[in-house]
Amino acid sequence: MEEKNFQKIQVAVEKELSCSAHNMDHVLRVYNLSLHLAEGENVDLDVLKAAALLHDIARVKEDNDQTGQTDHAILSAEMCIPILKEVNFSAEKIKHVQDCIVSHRYRTGNEPKTLEAKILFDADKLDTIGAIGIARSFVWVGRNKAKIYSDVDLDKYIAENLGGKINGRIQDKTKHSLQIEYKTKLVFLAGKLNTAKAKEVCKERLEFFENFLGRLEKEVKGEI
Amino acid sequence: MEEKNFQKIQVAVEKELSCSAHNMDHVLRVYNLSLHLAEGENVDLDVLKAAALLHDIARVKEDNDQTGQTDHAILSAEMCIPILKEVNFSAEKIKHVQDCIVSHRYRTGNEPKTLEAKILFDADKLDTIGAIGIARSFVWVGRNKAKIYSDVDLDKYIAENLGGKINGRIQDKTKHSLQIEYKTKLVFLAGKLNTAKAKEVCKERLEFFENFLGRLEKEVKGEI
Repeated sequence: MEEKNFQKIQVAVEKELSCSAHNMDHVLRVYNLSLHLAEGENVDLDVLKAAALLHDIARVKEDNDQTGQTDHAILSAEMCIPILKEVNFSAEKIKHVQDCIVSHRYRTGNEPKTLEAKILFDADKLDTIGAIGIARSFVWVGRNKAKIYSDVDLDKYIAENLGGKINGRIQDKTKHSLQIEYKTKLVFLAGKLNTAKAKEVCKERLEFFENFLGRLEKEVKGEI
Repeated sequence: MEEKNFQKIQVAVEKELSCSAHNMDHVLRVYNLSLHLAEGENVDLDVLKAAALLHDIARVKEDNDQTGQTDHAILSAEMCIPILKEVNFSAEKIKHVQDCIVSHRYRTGNEPKTLEAKILFDADKLDTIGAIGIARSFVWVGRNKAKIYSDVDLDKYIAENLGGKINGRIQDKTKHSLQIEYKTKLVFLAGKLNTAKAKEVCKERLEFFENFLGRLEKEVKGEI
């Protein structure tokens, strides 16, 4: 498919995410990373590119829904239909893009089945680690008045506040930190990924994340 | 001086900064780093410790002053007097602590003269770079809806928006980013520092900052 068609798709997405520049930045990072993960693979690039661009198109609608009923993965899969028809995607390809979009969200319970869906899922999750994951996490800290650094016995604190569960969330956001996010969630990310290449990227990005936290601790303590 | 006296000073500072946990965290980092910079130097530790703990005590008062007239460096130097008298600092030492506090702020025009004042100034500035500088900068990005990554021709953008000046500020905070902060301000930091040890720490922390930005760029572009 011609590049100008993907530009049309991007314009449609930007229109929906216009009040949230960060979401659009995330979309483009996931798009770039999806292409990176797809290198050398037998992938339908039309489907993957379209799915990456469209996967979060309903994000702002979900954020603005006071009832909490909207699931952006499901709504995005609906919203993509007229946009893809406009650029002459076949019914079959539209269905494939929809499947990728619905299954990019872990919580929906719809596991990614095709290679394109797996790559999109993996690229989306990899955007939470590495330098970009550090950046996004501290932006979250800033918005939620959370902690730059937790100066407590972390294992004890997590056991007391999360009941020792993994992948939980501490109710009081102001007590949350990257160290807690890392220990309770990010270290388990590799086990959720689908493709071998994404697992490699994950390993390397997690190491970067962990090294950053180690260095941060030394700086906070005035050791370096 | 006994440690319990510094604990008393810390309690007094915490009381003033209670509505801003981040300021207190900064104070303790500057305290730790000041001690690190003072290792092996002929320093009055009583003065340095007290000055590090007290240097931002009026920070919340400045932030809450709608008129913009309050200078926290000058006010902190006044507020420290009764606290230091309470723990039996001599008039001479109190004067020395005050000098350190007043001169920790670049904009006041009061240059640090004693070794203690120079160390405090340097430690305060070093908290803007390294892993902690990255963390604080992204927290700022989150609070001000600024950019995680500037995907523009940076030199051109800076020339157009800052008139080519260094150490300026882009009026529209939502357009600001760590890359711009680094290029227009942080790279010139070493020239403002006083002590040789701080310049060494600065060099190393700046390299870390720069490497982080380089890696962030690659991740954003989906290259790694």
